[in-house]
Amino acid sequence: MGKIRMIDISEKSNTLRTAIAKGEILMKKETIEKIKNNRLPKGNPLEVARVAGIMAAKNTPGLLPLCHPLLLTNVDIEFDIREDRLIIKSKVTSTGKTGVEMEALTALCISALAIYDVCKTDDKEMKIDNIRLIEKVGGRSGSFHRKE
Amino acid sequence: MGKIRMIDISEKSNTLRTAIAKGEILMKKETIEKIKNNRLPKGNPLEVARVAGIMAAKNTPGLLPLCHPLLLTNVDIEFDIREDRLIIKSKVTSTGKTGVEMEALTALCISALAIYDVCKTDDKEMKIDNIRLIEKVGGRSGSFHRKE
Amino acid sequence: MGKIRMIDISEKSNTLRTAIAKGEILMKKETIEKIKNNRLPKGNPLEVARVAGIMAAKNTPGLLPLCHPLLLTNVDIEFDIREDRLIIKSKVTSTGKTGVEMEALTALCISALAIYDVCKTDDKEMKIDNIRLIEKVGGRSGSFHRKE
Amino acid sequence: MGKIRMIDISEKSNTLRTAIAKGEILMKKETIEKIKNNRLPKGNPLEVARVAGIMAAKNTPGLLPLCHPLLLTNVDIEFDIREDRLIIKSKVTSTGKTGVEMEALTALCISALAIYDVCKTDDKEMKIDNIRLIEKVGGRSGSFHRKE
Amino acid sequence: MGKIRMIDISEKSNTLRTAIAKGEILMKKETIEKIKNNRLPKGNPLEVARVAGIMAAKNTPGLLPLCHPLLLTNVDIEFDIREDRLIIKSKVTSTGKTGVEMEALTALCISALAIYDVCKTDDKEMKIDNIRLIEKVGGRSGSFHRKE
Amino acid sequence: MGKIRMIDISEKSNTLRTAIAKGEILMKKETIEKIKNNRLPKGNPLEVARVAGIMAAKNTPGLLPLCHPLLLTNVDIEFDIREDRLIIKSKVTSTGKTGVEMEALTALCISALAIYDVCKTDDKEMKIDNIRLIEKVGGRSGSFHRKE
Repeated sequence: MGKIRMIDISEKSNTLRTAIAKGEILMKKETIEKIKNNRLPKGNPLEVARVAGIMAAKNTPGLLPLCHPLLLTNVDIEFDIREDRLIIKSKVTSTGKTGVEMEALTALCISALAIYDVCKTDDKEMKIDNIRLIEKVGGRSGSFHRKE
Repeated sequence: MGKIRMIDISEKSNTLRTAIAKGEILMKKETIEKIKNNRLPKGNPLEVARVAGIMAAKNTPGLLPLCHPLLLTNVDIEFDIREDRLIIKSKVTSTGKTGVEMEALTALCISALAIYDVCKTDDKEMKIDNIRLIEKVGGRSGSFHRKE
Repeated sequence: MGKIRMIDISEKSNTLRTAIAKGEILMKKETIEKIKNNRLPKGNPLEVARVAGIMAAKNTPGLLPLCHPLLLTNVDIEFDIREDRLIIKSKVTSTGKTGVEMEALTALCISALAIYDVCKTDDKEMKIDNIRLIEKVGGRSGSFHRKE
Repeated sequence: MGKIRMIDISEKSNTLRTAIAKGEILMKKETIEKIKNNRLPKGNPLEVARVAGIMAAKNTPGLLPLCHPLLLTNVDIEFDIREDRLIIKSKVTSTGKTGVEMEALTALCISALAIYDVCKTDDKEMKIDNIRLIEKVGGRSGSFHRKE
Repeated sequence: MGKIRMIDISEKSNTLRTAIAKGEILMKKETIEKIKNNRLPKGNPLEVARVAGIMAAKNTPGLLPLCHPLLLTNVDIEFDIREDRLIIKSKVTSTGKTGVEMEALTALCISALAIYDVCKTDDKEMKIDNIRLIEKVGGRSGSFHRKE
Repeated sequence: MGKIRMIDISEKSNTLRTAIAKGEILMKKETIEKIKNNRLPKGNPLEVARVAGIMAAKNTPGLLPLCHPLLLTNVDIEFDIREDRLIIKSKVTSTGKTGVEMEALTALCISALAIYDVCKTDDKEMKIDNIRLIEKVGGRSGSFHRKE
């Protein structure tokens, strides 16, 4: 039976849990240059993307139907500007009953979309790419570290 | 000066606008098989992902700081299951003053995350990938059709 | 094919549309007396229920996945206290492309739940009942008036 | 004095709490048949209603002004299709400082409204009815089991 | 480096925390009289403002990007009508890992705005003024009591 | 009769409307210096406050119970750093059926709270002050320009 359902986490224990996700936006070199030189008409995308990503992480159970509400204790988003892409890394921390992978991935996706939004007048060929879980620590099921 | 800012769309006219986005989730063949055979513990991910994507499209200005509120007249999300990936296509329609690219891309990302959430117990190596604008029609700046 | 989908309303015209819904909460006579005499520990439920109902009507597309965003031009909620029940009537008005039945019914349900919440310490046997569309005016499909 | 107020739950203890609510939607037999045979223009209402109900349960303190935020650990919604009605049952679980009756009732109402929305083109005479608390377990005030 | 960031509160302990904020709305004496005599076209502003303030307190992490989600255990809002102003006092309680100053101040500001909204047809010269933290108790950094 | 109610705006016409609000945060000179030199632990408050204010303006009908949903076409927030205070100015534009005063004031208050949040570890004596409508243009009731 394929009924959509949440997983009951009542019996799981509150422990420190972290998750790290990574992804990137491929863009034209000219767009990267405009970000570096702050010449985009909507302003510097990195600060607005960081704020959007943090707010989205907190809003994850309002966006993903089967995610449980959690008290996030930290959300951190970092950017690494390369020649032809912007790499985004998000890290989420909680002390609750279930992992925060979806929070890290949601922060990352919304952060990437916010950057896309600021740059899209200048570059319609951008691609949001390679979004994946890098690390997950804490909780009964043990740690996960992606091999890359 | 790089101040974050919205674009003033007061003078733009209300016209029919559509946008189509595409993206994919790479997964293990075993996970694809479980989706097909409805054997995932959280149920069939496609219906929950479609609902999550539609709701996210409507919520775009609440997620992306510089997006304008728009009255969406339709959101459509389709899935195409391949051997090693699930391809998602979203189409958004509005009759407002600015384009709906960000709405289509937001629907797509949240839809992908909802699928990821349902499958993640079985597959931690999934990757959300290749998210891009395929087509944008309507509005002063003309149509865009991605060459692929 | 049973795919969940929104209805595309792009081609529908903006016209004045109203909808009226009705429903009731059955309660103990003692609870009704406490409402009348303002002796409930959480305060007078009617004002909080009216506010909750108005806010819910505006939030309908955030609650019901396939509802379109609409610019409501008015929401009105009225209460009629009877001996063993509280009758709620909601009326919603818009000038958009689709009807506002769901907005009127959502206002009504959330209003009823807010009353339930204020009274529940005193009465656990309450029943929210008989929620129905009374009237729908405006739009291509013609008027509807429930026969009662 | 009838001032609207929350109840201060600071001193209450975190314990496992569950609540079960039930309700129904009365519809034409033809509408029931269309649900069973998946012939409604908006698709199968049950999956979209389940998702809407789960999301609404998590959003209860955003809908009902005097409800406290709670970390729900599970939300489950089941449907039972009868000849002339659809019976909905919701169950909510938490490990917090106050009961989850309102969460169960909110899940139920929004779930019912989502079904109504999908069916309303075919049936304007539907009635959402008989919404009540069936059971409440956990917390200082003891269990409640409705006699039916 | 001035990167926007949340403070990591993972290691802080759950303790009882309260915060009290105060502020006022300066208005024409005629407007104050209309509030007292309930003659404003949108109704009595105090009840709607109390509800709006309570709901806003719960929504603080959805409004202020760097605020952590917290389980508020109580929100209380009081009004004191003076000859030429309305004084608002908000008190918020939680048992979480960080203080609730921002929740008390958010409740206060939204409450003031809700009053402004109800009165604005009659008085466009109102001023929201003197919003400040009065007291903060609980947590590692010790108590704060504003000297006035 | 003092029933809380929205104003029915169905018959009002869509016209260009703008509103400007102003307010300030009084702070210690040391805090002002830290903002200027970017030495606050949570980062530069101005960008996060601008984003928070823009998002709050769009969310006004979700915060203020009697406000109508509106399609904002622009939100602009500017800061002016003085020796002992930060002055905030917000401007909101729409082409809808009712004015945008509440949107401008909401953007301003949330923007001020976001600044407060970033600075509060360093300065607990801050005061949000002097929040008022400066100008309102468009709509049947004519323009308003505050005399200062």
